[in-house]
Amino acid sequence: MIERKPTFSPTLDQKAATRVGQDMYGLISKLYPICRSMTGEGVRTTLRVMQERIGGLKIHEVATGTPVFDWVVPQEWSIRDAYIKGPDGRKVISFANSNLHVVGNSCPVHQSMPLSALRAHLHSLPDKPNWIPYRTSYFKESWGFCLSHNQLASLPEGDYEVMIDSSLTDGHLTYGEMLIEGETADEVLISCHVCHPSLCNDNLSGISLAVAIAERLSEFRLRYSYRFVFVPVTIGSITWLSINEGQLSRIRHGLLLANVGDAGKITYKRSRRGNADVDRAMQTVLRESGAEYSIIDFIPYGYDERQYCSPAFDLPLGCFSRTPHGRFEEYHTSADNLDFVKSEALAHSYATILTTIWVLETNARYLNLNPKCEPQLGRRGVYRAWAEQSDGGGAEMALLWVLNMSDGEHDLLDIAARSGMRYESIVKAMRVLTQCGLLSQPAVT
Amino acid sequence: MIERKPTFSPTLDQKAATRVGQDMYGLISKLYPICRSMTGEGVRTTLRVMQERIGGLKIHEVATGTPVFDWVVPQEWSIRDAYIKGPDGRKVISFANSNLHVVGNSCPVHQSMPLSALRAHLHSLPDKPNWIPYRTSYFKESWGFCLSHNQLASLPEGDYEVMIDSSLTDGHLTYGEMLIEGETADEVLISCHVCHPSLCNDNLSGISLAVAIAERLSEFRLRYSYRFVFVPVTIGSITWLSINEGQLSRIRHGLLLANVGDAGKITYKRSRRGNADVDRAMQTVLRESGAEYSIIDFIPYGYDERQYCSPAFDLPLGCFSRTPHGRFEEYHTSADNLDFVKSEALAHSYATILTTIWVLETNARYLNLNPKCEPQLGRRGVYRAWAEQSDGGGAEMALLWVLNMSDGEHDLLDIAARSGMRYESIVKAMRVLTQCGLLSQPAVT
Amino acid sequence: MIERKPTFSPTLDQKAATRVGQDMYGLISKLYPICRSMTGEGVRTTLRVMQERIGGLKIHEVATGTPVFDWVVPQEWSIRDAYIKGPDGRKVISFANSNLHVVGNSCPVHQSMPLSALRAHLHSLPDKPNWIPYRTSYFKESWGFCLSHNQLASLPEGDYEVMIDSSLTDGHLTYGEMLIEGETADEVLISCHVCHPSLCNDNLSGISLAVAIAERLSEFRLRYSYRFVFVPVTIGSITWLSINEGQLSRIRHGLLLANVGDAGKITYKRSRRGNADVDRAMQTVLRESGAEYSIIDFIPYGYDERQYCSPAFDLPLGCFSRTPHGRFEEYHTSADNLDFVKSEALAHSYATILTTIWVLETNARYLNLNPKCEPQLGRRGVYRAWAEQSDGGGAEMALLWVLNMSDGEHDLLDIAARSGMRYESIVKAMRVLTQCGLLSQPAVT
Repeated sequence: MIERKPTFSPTLDQKAATRVGQDMYGLISKLYPICRSMTGEGVRTTLRVMQERIGGLKIHEVATGTPVFDWVVPQEWSIRDAYIKGPDGRKVISFANSNLHVVGNSCPVHQSMPLSALRAHLHSLPDKPNWIPYRTSYFKESWGFCLSHNQLASLPEGDYEVMIDSSLTDGHLTYGEMLIEGETADEVLISCHVCHPSLCNDNLSGISLAVAIAERLSEFRLRYSYRFVFVPVTIGSITWLSINEGQLSRIRHGLLLANVGDAGKITYKRSRRGNADVDRAMQTVLRESGAEYSIIDFIPYGYDERQYCSPAFDLPLGCFSRTPHGRFEEYHTSADNLDFVKSEALAHSYATILTTIWVLETNARYLNLNPKCEPQLGRRGVYRAWAEQSDGGGAEMALLWVLNMSDGEHDLLDIAARSGMRYESIVKAMRVLTQCGLLSQPAVT
Repeated sequence: MIERKPTFSPTLDQKAATRVGQDMYGLISKLYPICRSMTGEGVRTTLRVMQERIGGLKIHEVATGTPVFDWVVPQEWSIRDAYIKGPDGRKVISFANSNLHVVGNSCPVHQSMPLSALRAHLHSLPDKPNWIPYRTSYFKESWGFCLSHNQLASLPEGDYEVMIDSSLTDGHLTYGEMLIEGETADEVLISCHVCHPSLCNDNLSGISLAVAIAERLSEFRLRYSYRFVFVPVTIGSITWLSINEGQLSRIRHGLLLANVGDAGKITYKRSRRGNADVDRAMQTVLRESGAEYSIIDFIPYGYDERQYCSPAFDLPLGCFSRTPHGRFEEYHTSADNLDFVKSEALAHSYATILTTIWVLETNARYLNLNPKCEPQLGRRGVYRAWAEQSDGGGAEMALLWVLNMSDGEHDLLDIAARSGMRYESIVKAMRVLTQCGLLSQPAVT
Repeated sequence: MIERKPTFSPTLDQKAATRVGQDMYGLISKLYPICRSMTGEGVRTTLRVMQERIGGLKIHEVATGTPVFDWVVPQEWSIRDAYIKGPDGRKVISFANSNLHVVGNSCPVHQSMPLSALRAHLHSLPDKPNWIPYRTSYFKESWGFCLSHNQLASLPEGDYEVMIDSSLTDGHLTYGEMLIEGETADEVLISCHVCHPSLCNDNLSGISLAVAIAERLSEFRLRYSYRFVFVPVTIGSITWLSINEGQLSRIRHGLLLANVGDAGKITYKRSRRGNADVDRAMQTVLRESGAEYSIIDFIPYGYDERQYCSPAFDLPLGCFSRTPHGRFEEYHTSADNLDFVKSEALAHSYATILTTIWVLETNARYLNLNPKCEPQLGRRGVYRAWAEQSDGGGAEMALLWVLNMSDGEHDLLDIAARSGMRYESIVKAMRVLTQCGLLSQPAVT
C-alpha cells in the first residue's frame, strides 16, 4: 500500500536550498574522519551514520569468496593503527592524524629499516609538496605510507620503525541499499561509491547528495520506485549486479553521483546508449538552467558506469558530476578536503538532480483525444485552467504544440525540444489539456 | 474524358509575367472595398467576383449549427451601416469610408454615450498614429470601432451617438472550391483564406495568386488534379476538412497561400512532416532561383496549416508567403492597402508557385532499364535527342546521374540534390533517356 | 590447399619502401614506350611484361563481336607505322618518336594533301605549345595526328604526305586477371585500366602499384582472396563484368587504382554506397596518416567505377588516386611522362594501399565473451600479453573500449572511430583479448 503523499515537486525556496546545502555539508563533515576501504569497518560505520538520516537504508554483507561474475569477493581489510618512528623514536607519521597516510589494503608490517630502504614504500607528490596522496594496493600484497613531499624531504637519514597493525581476513563486502517505492515497479537507480577514505568530493559529496535526495523523495508520491545503491567502486557494483541480475530490467533510468560538491560547473556524461531518456532529461534541464555546463559522451572509464553500462547490461545510466573524475588537481589527495567542497555547490547539484527526477517523473507520450483539427479551447475553459496553474507564459503556443505533437510518437521532452519552449511550460500545457479531457496517456502496451 | 491540352510548362516571358502581375493586382483592387468576415455577404460577393475569372469555382454553403469536428458552424454576420456622430452631430467615423472602422462581428448598437464611456469601445495604434487597426470579436458578444490614433486624440469631450446596424442570424458559412482535373485522381490542394476585409496582402494577394494559378493550370494537361479551396480562416478549413474527411487521402501535396504580394523575400514554412515532397520541391525551386529566400520549420500557429497539419490529418502541406504572418508592421492595419502590394512581387510569387508545381508534376522515381554497366549512349542518338531539347549544359553528366541513380529508390529531386545539378537538367536527361527506351517509370504498386 | 605463410603485415622499413618505389618506377619505365590501345598488341605486350613480375597473371582474350551487356567487343586495332612528310620529303612527324603522335584507333591512310587540308587532321594544345595531346577516335572512323602547337605553327605551306599503316580487323579484346587465394572465397577486387599509350601517371602508375601490391600479398596468408583485373577502360570492365556476372557477390571490397604516381596529395573517391567498409577503412587510414588528403563523394564519371558502381552491381568499390582524373594539367598530354611520376609518391601510395588492405583484413565484429561487468584483466595476464605486442600506448583504454563495444553490433573500425583511438591500438587490444579468451569472432551467420 502506497500511503497518500503529495505529488512530487522539485521546487525549493532559497532558504530551503541553503539549509539542504548545509545539511549535506554537515553529513560530509561527519563522515570525513572515517577510514573507508573496499571492505571493512569503515564502510559499515559510514552506512550506519547514513541510516541516522535515511532509516530505510539496508546494510548488506556478502561473504569473502563469493563468486560475482568474473570476480570473487575479496578478504576484508582491517586496520587498527600505523606509524613511522624516526631515528629519534618520535612518530613522524601517524595513521591517527590522517587515514591517507597508509596505502589502502596494506599488509601488516613491523620492522626497522634505514631511510634508504623505507623510501621504496613512501609516496608523495613532488608537484604538490604540501599534499598527501591517496594510494591503494588492492591487487598485490604490499604496504606503504603516503606523506607530503615536504615532509619526505625533511626526513633525516637513519633507522626508522614502521608499524602497520592491519589484517586481511575472511569477512564480508558491505554495501547499502534503499528502495523508495513508487506507484510502479519501474525503477530509477541512483548509485554512488563509498569506498574512499578521507576525501570529500570523491565521494562523500555523492553520498551526501544521494542521502538528501532520498530524504526528499520519501516525502512524495512518485511514479517510479527509486533504488539507492551505496557500493565500493568496481567490486561493489559487480557484486550488486551479480546479486540483482534478474531484476535489472526494472531499471528505466539511472544516475551515478560522484564529485558533486566542488565549485566547478556541472558535467554530465551520457549513458552508453547516448540517447536514453535520462540523457535527454539531463540535457533539457542543463540547457534550461542558464548555468554553464558540459555534456560528454560515454567512455568505458570512470566509476561504476563501467559495470552498469557493460555490454550485457547497457543500463540507461549517466554520470552526474561537477568537475569530473581526475580533472581537478585536488583529486585523490589530502586537498580534497572540507575546504574543497562548498554547500552552495552541493545545493546546486541537489536542485539539478531533483529537477531531472521531476522531468523523468513527468515525461511521457500523450495522445491528443481530439486530433482532427484544433479543438475549441475557449469553450472548455482551457485558458482559465491555465491561469490556475503557476504562470509560465506562452500559454497558447504550449497548448498548440502539445496538441499538435501528441500523436503517440513524441514524448514531452521531444515536444519541448521541437518547440523550443521550456519543459515546464510543456508539462503545464499537458496538465491543462488532460484536465479538460483533451489529452490522455495511451494505454500501456 | 480529359481533353487534349499541351503538357504543362511553367515558362513565362517577361511580357506575359508583367501582364499576369497586373491582372493579379487588378483583382486585388476589385476585391479591396468588399467587407468580408467569417461569414456573410462579403465572402459570397468575393467568390462571385472570382467566378468571373475562374468559372469552375463552386460556391458552397454550410448551415449555421452544422457540427464540424469539435466546432459548430456559427451564425452569419450582416452589417448594413455603422457610424459615430460627434457632439456636433457630424459623423466622425463612417463604415462607408472603411470597413476596418467596425470591429468584425460587432453586435448591433445604437445609443448615445459620453466620450469617456465610448473609449472602452475604441481601438487605435499609438505607435502607428495614422493607421486604423483591424480587430474582430468572434467569440464573445461585443461591439467596437477602430480608428487612427490621431483621430482618437482629436475627439472632443461630449456625447457621441454610436450606431451599428448589424445582425447575427442563422444562415450559412460560405466557401469556394474548384477542381481542375488531371490525369490522375491524386490531388494537389491549394488553400487560401477569404475572410479578411479590406486588407491587401492578407489575403487578397493569396486569393489573386490562386486565381491566376487556376487560370493557368486550366490550359494544360496535368498529372495531378488541382483542388483550390477558398475558406474563412480556422472555421472554414475545419468545415471543409469535416465535409471532405473521406477524400483526404487523395491529397499528395498541398500549399497554403497568404501574404504573397509585399516586396519582401519569399518565406516557405515546411509541412509538419518536414520532408514532404512539396517541401523538397519548394526547397529546390528556391535554392535554384538565385533570389534571397527563407525556409522555416512548421509550428502549429499561423493560418489553416494548423488544421491541415493537425495530427490526425498531417497533410503534406506547406505555407508559401513573402513576409509571413505578423512579421510586417502593416499587418492587420489599414496600411496593408493597395500601395503595400506590388504587381512585380505578385508576378514573382506566381512564377515561383508555377515552377514548384512543374517540379511536382515532373518529379518521380524512374528505373534504369539497362542497369548493368552504362548503356552505349552514342548509338542510340541520345546526344542528338538532347540537342533537340532546349539546352541546359552538362548533358553527359545529367544523363549519367539519372542512369546511375534511377534504381527505384531515388526520385528526380534526389538526383538533383545529390548531383548538384539543376532540376531542369535532370528532367531533361530523364526525358531523353525515356525517349531512347533507357528509362521508364516503375509500375505503380 | 593454402600454404603456410606468415600473417599479413603492412609494415615496411624506410629502405624497403624506397626500393619498392624504385621498382614501381622501373616497371613504369619499361612499359612507357609501348603503344597501348583499347585492343591489340600493346595491351598484350604490357601484360606479358607484367607476367615477369607476377607469374600468376592470366591473359584473357575475348573475340571481336562478343556481346557484353549493351555493348559488343570491338575489332582489334593494329598499327605498324605512321608519319607525315613535309614538302621537302623529310619526316616532320614519326610514330616511332612518340605513339601519342597518332590519334588512337586511326584508320589507315596514305595520301598527299596540302597543309590547308591536313590541318583538319592535326591536333595540338595552343595553351601548352610544347606538349603533344593524347587523342582517340573510338566511335567513328577517322584518322589524325597529334603534335605540339609550336611544331604545328612552324609547318610551311605545301603538300604533305601522310601515312598511317594501321588496320581494324576481327581479333580480340585482351585483359589480364590474377587471383591470390586467401582463407575465404570472399574477394577484394583491385582494378586498373591498361589501355593508355605512353602516359605515366594515367595509368602506368596504377598498373605498377597493382603489380607491387600483388607481389607483396603473395607472400602472406590472407583472410580475403585478392582479384587483380587489368582492363581497357569502359569496354574492358564491361566485358569483365559480363563474363563474371555470376561471381560478383563474392566481392566484399574493391579499389580502383589510377593516377597514383604524381606528387599531389591522395584523393579517395567513395563508392556509390558512400559508407562501404572500404570507404570507412580508407577514411580511417587517411585520417590517421598525418598527411594531407581529400575524400570526395561518388560521381558517375571517371574510370571503371562507372561500370562497377552501375545500379545493378553497386559494388563496394572506391577509387584511389593522388591528383585525380583530369585535375592535373599534364593529364592526357606528353607531359604525363617519366618526369611527372615520382618513386616517393609511388611508394607512399603503395604504403597507403597496404595499410588499407591490412585494415580490411583485420576489421571484424567481435563478441565480448564476458559481457557482464568488466572481466578481471589482471589475473589473466592481459597486461603482460599487451607488453608482448609492439607498443602503442593507451593499453587499458583500448582494452576497455574493445570489451565495451564488442556486442556484435560494432566492428573494429566503429570502435576506433567512437573511441578516437588509432585503429592499430584497437586491433592490438582485440588480439590481446582474443589471446586471453575474452573475445571471439561470432559464428558466421
